[in-house]
Amino acid sequence: MTSATPQSPSVRPDGRAPDQLREVRFTRGWLDHAEGSVLVEFGATRVLIAASVSEGVPRWRRGSGLGWVTAEYAMLPRATHTRSDRESVKGRIGGRTHEISRLIGRSLRAVIDYKALGENTIQLDCDVLQADGGTRTAAITGAYVALEDACAHLAGLGALAGEPLLGSVQAVSVGVVDGAPVLDLNYTEDSSAEVDLNVVVDGTGRFVEVQGTAEGQPFDRAVMDQLLDLGVAGCAQLAALQRTALDATPPSR
Amino acid sequence: MTSATPQSPSVRPDGRAPDQLREVRFTRGWLDHAEGSVLVEFGATRVLIAASVSEGVPRWRRGSGLGWVTAEYAMLPRATHTRSDRESVKGRIGGRTHEISRLIGRSLRAVIDYKALGENTIQLDCDVLQADGGTRTAAITGAYVALEDACAHLAGLGALAGEPLLGSVQAVSVGVVDGAPVLDLNYTEDSSAEVDLNVVVDGTGRFVEVQGTAEGQPFDRAVMDQLLDLGVAGCAQLAALQRTALDATPPSR
Amino acid sequence: MTSATPQSPSVRPDGRAPDQLREVRFTRGWLDHAEGSVLVEFGATRVLIAASVSEGVPRWRRGSGLGWVTAEYAMLPRATHTRSDRESVKGRIGGRTHEISRLIGRSLRAVIDYKALGENTIQLDCDVLQADGGTRTAAITGAYVALEDACAHLAGLGALAGEPLLGSVQAVSVGVVDGAPVLDLNYTEDSSAEVDLNVVVDGTGRFVEVQGTAEGQPFDRAVMDQLLDLGVAGCAQLAALQRTALDATPPSR
Amino acid sequence: MTSATPQSPSVRPDGRAPDQLREVRFTRGWLDHAEGSVLVEFGATRVLIAASVSEGVPRWRRGSGLGWVTAEYAMLPRATHTRSDRESVKGRIGGRTHEISRLIGRSLRAVIDYKALGENTIQLDCDVLQADGGTRTAAITGAYVALEDACAHLAGLGALAGEPLLGSVQAVSVGVVDGAPVLDLNYTEDSSAEVDLNVVVDGTGRFVEVQGTAEGQPFDRAVMDQLLDLGVAGCAQLAALQRTALDATPPSR
Amino acid sequence: MTSATPQSPSVRPDGRAPDQLREVRFTRGWLDHAEGSVLVEFGATRVLIAASVSEGVPRWRRGSGLGWVTAEYAMLPRATHTRSDRESVKGRIGGRTHEISRLIGRSLRAVIDYKALGENTIQLDCDVLQADGGTRTAAITGAYVALEDACAHLAGLGALAGEPLLGSVQAVSVGVVDGAPVLDLNYTEDSSAEVDLNVVVDGTGRFVEVQGTAEGQPFDRAVMDQLLDLGVAGCAQLAALQRTALDATPPSR
Amino acid sequence: MTSATPQSPSVRPDGRAPDQLREVRFTRGWLDHAEGSVLVEFGATRVLIAASVSEGVPRWRRGSGLGWVTAEYAMLPRATHTRSDRESVKGRIGGRTHEISRLIGRSLRAVIDYKALGENTIQLDCDVLQADGGTRTAAITGAYVALEDACAHLAGLGALAGEPLLGSVQAVSVGVVDGAPVLDLNYTEDSSAEVDLNVVVDGTGRFVEVQGTAEGQPFDRAVMDQLLDLGVAGCAQLAALQRTALDATPPSR
Repeated sequence: MTSATPQSPSVRPDGRAPDQLREVRFTRGWLDHAEGSVLVEFGATRVLIAASVSEGVPRWRRGSGLGWVTAEYAMLPRATHTRSDRESVKGRIGGRTHEISRLIGRSLRAVIDYKALGENTIQLDCDVLQADGGTRTAAITGAYVALEDACAHLAGLGALAGEPLLGSVQAVSVGVVDGAPVLDLNYTEDSSAEVDLNVVVDGTGRFVEVQGTAEGQPFDRAVMDQLLDLGVAGCAQLAALQRTALDATPPSR
Repeated sequence: MTSATPQSPSVRPDGRAPDQLREVRFTRGWLDHAEGSVLVEFGATRVLIAASVSEGVPRWRRGSGLGWVTAEYAMLPRATHTRSDRESVKGRIGGRTHEISRLIGRSLRAVIDYKALGENTIQLDCDVLQADGGTRTAAITGAYVALEDACAHLAGLGALAGEPLLGSVQAVSVGVVDGAPVLDLNYTEDSSAEVDLNVVVDGTGRFVEVQGTAEGQPFDRAVMDQLLDLGVAGCAQLAALQRTALDATPPSR
Repeated sequence: MTSATPQSPSVRPDGRAPDQLREVRFTRGWLDHAEGSVLVEFGATRVLIAASVSEGVPRWRRGSGLGWVTAEYAMLPRATHTRSDRESVKGRIGGRTHEISRLIGRSLRAVIDYKALGENTIQLDCDVLQADGGTRTAAITGAYVALEDACAHLAGLGALAGEPLLGSVQAVSVGVVDGAPVLDLNYTEDSSAEVDLNVVVDGTGRFVEVQGTAEGQPFDRAVMDQLLDLGVAGCAQLAALQRTALDATPPSR
Repeated sequence: MTSATPQSPSVRPDGRAPDQLREVRFTRGWLDHAEGSVLVEFGATRVLIAASVSEGVPRWRRGSGLGWVTAEYAMLPRATHTRSDRESVKGRIGGRTHEISRLIGRSLRAVIDYKALGENTIQLDCDVLQADGGTRTAAITGAYVALEDACAHLAGLGALAGEPLLGSVQAVSVGVVDGAPVLDLNYTEDSSAEVDLNVVVDGTGRFVEVQGTAEGQPFDRAVMDQLLDLGVAGCAQLAALQRTALDATPPSR
Repeated sequence: MTSATPQSPSVRPDGRAPDQLREVRFTRGWLDHAEGSVLVEFGATRVLIAASVSEGVPRWRRGSGLGWVTAEYAMLPRATHTRSDRESVKGRIGGRTHEISRLIGRSLRAVIDYKALGENTIQLDCDVLQADGGTRTAAITGAYVALEDACAHLAGLGALAGEPLLGSVQAVSVGVVDGAPVLDLNYTEDSSAEVDLNVVVDGTGRFVEVQGTAEGQPFDRAVMDQLLDLGVAGCAQLAALQRTALDATPPSR
Repeated sequence: MTSATPQSPSVRPDGRAPDQLREVRFTRGWLDHAEGSVLVEFGATRVLIAASVSEGVPRWRRGSGLGWVTAEYAMLPRATHTRSDRESVKGRIGGRTHEISRLIGRSLRAVIDYKALGENTIQLDCDVLQADGGTRTAAITGAYVALEDACAHLAGLGALAGEPLLGSVQAVSVGVVDGAPVLDLNYTEDSSAEVDLNVVVDGTGRFVEVQGTAEGQPFDRAVMDQLLDLGVAGCAQLAALQRTALDATPPSR
């Protein structure tokens, strides 16, 4: 379990500086059965991630000698302020869920060497137990931790053909709130943000994915530049926190 | 948080006596937004329960002056030893899920005075985060705790027409393993049980629901009687543990 | 075709004694194509059962040398007082349907020797043509008759590795109506029952499945005991009626 | 119950003359609850029809003063030689089912005076219990009988604004088998028919619906003319059988 | 591109004679990728047809040496005067869509020699871009053109075992509007037609499929005869237009 | 209809310069019924857009005085090199479709003044008839044209409370192919791109939405900057082409 320490005073709802993360915690091994698992918390946002390893790959990839990594994101019905109906009950998965699941999968695959992974599949299940903004970026950041544990598990089995991880992955949301660029928005900030941008980078700070949306007015290049800087810097902090968590005694499984 | 203390030696896989519960914990207020919430643990079985209060009742009940209580049960994909596909992805809810959701709803409704509840609905979401046997009975036992907190919330709002709770509810599984009746089976025991029986009682030990199944050979009346005794006694212990948890300082919401 | 004869006066809506079955009829061979079929009637409740035999077993069981028995329950839209929408039109199967299908399947599997059945599957389709209470127990009781005919069909083909039936199965509903325990409730009684209990036993009176629910107040052990006695006695009568029906000239297929 | 008597020798599989119907039976009042019901049999084809009356009309028709008649067709899984999966289990209704439901609805609506019916809906459920060819035409022919009983029920309630039936409806299949036009094909004939044509007429022999398909080679106008003649003549016999059935003592409901 | 020229004055909404087609155009090769494609227009009705060739046949036909032809029909949401919801969004295909897809598939299969086609599948996708009556008959008539191009493509690959086309197929709607039989109804006429009949014939004028419906009163044999004559004559004109289009320089793919 | 003229030589598969658009065409009024419609072409990519106007807004927005704009994206089965199954047939909408529909809706809403629009809804249906890369950006660019026509239609009806368009919207894809940044990738380029970025801007060049993905290696800030420049410049050209198309004689509806 690792936490980011506050660095400066500010006028944000929870007193953070504009470039300050919420308290971030990684609790590895939260589940007994999963080959990798972590309860990741960004403030009140809590996402439970399970990495499930299975031999073999989807049909369209068989015989290629290449592995596969995929992800599914979901939210418990009362993760939010008001209850949402279950997608299982509605009988269909919503667009937002689909979109985020795809984003998480792409982000993690960006640091995978499929050949080294061999014909193994790692499925990352990211279930939001409580939502307070930034669930998708918390999920990506936590999923990397679970993924590294799952790879270690495969290595322990002698099931790898090399080092499957080309680097680490971090993600954070940035946005413009009341005219000012801020890092790691909570729900209150997110609801009133004028611009909302999710930055996914690798451990060297290069971009894996960027998704920005003008919630109100379109925004100019100067804002874009500020937000990218803020996001990359936040991800560097997250990379350090991930490392600290992963360097701790491995979970007991 | 409250736990059952072991009482006697035994030959069960985890060393429990035949009539001994696993360690049982109730963590109230695990969620910030739900009007009642509890993380209930029976050993390694962990179920997160959220009680959501909403004004009004389903269409078929409107204008009756009567309230409603309902439940949904689900399991995270990696709650179990091997991953299961999500029901949202499959696009349909399985028979087991339906069956358990209905059981939980009926069990809690058995102690509700609809008139006192007024035209309010309490939705109980029971999500299994980790499964090690007895998830449905843990869900019922925990849901009662969340339900009592949700009723207190409604009382605080002055939204009730009286005391909506006619009593408490507890549930536990009992079964015959290796020829011997045992209480509160874990997954290993459950997998090899010859008889599997779920007992739901109210705080006075009267039956709310009984569901018994011969997994192997049909069983006779003497076994039935032993199992009912064992289940009723286990539920009495659970009632005490519920009370201790509920008498603790209320959660901070 | 076989019928239960009334035995004593009573105050039940249809004049039956508390421990008296409705008139029960089994019409074997109601369908021309099914390997076993029966129209079973418990008073005005009519369930058409078709047992379909097929070579092979579901994928997860292949190569085991073991057979399989499964069941599906459904109700015609106007089996009831008011029309219900079709589940095919709604695009999903309801919880009640799932629950009953599973109960029927488990009940019949309790008397099957899978090894003797060999890698054959028997599918029991139980379609309620008219519902007047007790449809699930009528379905189980009738399904046994169709199952025995289907096994005889397999025996005739020389497709069995032994006797696949370990015994017979009967089921009946019992309940508390106006404070009194009664056997085989019709719809009117069922609607006002305080306790509703379904008993499934084998031909020797041992329990295969018991499901009891307090519809109103929780009930005590003395009531439980009375209901179990009543149900077991009713099943013994049903076993005799099944035997008479099965001993008649076999259907013409 | 009314039956068509054979009129001439032939070489058809069941010994019928080319222009001869199978034995046709109408058992009115087969269900206790439906406002109209009939078990219609064309030889071994058995369709159970329930006419359900409800006050009011679908949303798009409200306030028009006009009634509505609609139909749903379905087949039990083992109505046929080999078992078919349930559409409720598959979660979707097949094209054939949709097509036949629509045909039945259109055919019956052709003889309805919506104004006289008033804002009432009659739902015709046509469930094939056993299929031996001609299920859709048997369903239409039987549905008319159930519809007339349902209208009588509405008349008895004083709920009509006039006579809602403009005439009667009959339907039969005709086809070319082994080069010869024949009436009312059973399954064996249907399977090898070169042309398959369904004729729906009103009681005066005028066309309500005609659907003809070349199963093998396209067919010429002379064949079309023969088939239409054969179908119209067959429907005249069916009209007489319907009348006899409807003139019998009304069912007991 | 080929067009039907008007032949006589009339009182129809668009000034056509009763036996006159709308302007009919076939634009072959409208799509770059499909093995056959055509944009067919009957006046303002525009249907885009793609014929997709694939090696192999559906599972149930494998190893038979026989080919397969199938069709799917759909309509863009704003093909019509008012927008309709997408069937993909509704999650289910409507009865009308199913019915028309099946009709198109049957009609084209009527002129296919499966043996000559070999184990190849041709899938005909018929998407209505704009609807002004007669979309299903336009789809059939256009699909034949795309099918012939797809067969030529297969011939070019040397993938055929003979000539797979036994003839051509045309289809047109006829109906009774204001008491008069007319050919090729547009939407305005279709909406007020008393009788609506679709005629599908092969190039020699023999019937492949006939579907007639009394929209208002049932109709007599004399009307039936007139409509069949009108439809067969219209199809002969369509056959000539198809031929002209197909004899033009082949599309560039 | 308006087209972009090539400006410089290059080594791209189709001979374009790195910063050169494909030929872009807008055919307004392609549909007779839609209040706004355009067939937009970016080279071989063709998307048909229909803007449907309806009075009123979705339930959750009623009584607010605010309008609504939403979009749905779909692809015909044979828009691509190989046929894809229809989502209506699969019974569910895929993640990619959901994601793009949401992107288009958000992009167009960025330039809408909901108050000026009043309680009217504009639904944008974007159906890809042929796909050759860049379908989502072509859809956004074309949808703006259809949206402006739909707004003109509403203005003509006097149904607006002001000018609902705050500006125009353009979108284009940019990417890194063989190490070089290029504008408006076709399918061949898209398939081998190392980075893929979609830029949506308003008429003043400010960002509405940016979505970038590393398809291979993560990319650095310098590449990001180049791609953003390229995209903004491409959108400026598209804005001019939109204007030319919109300034032409309005479509005939």
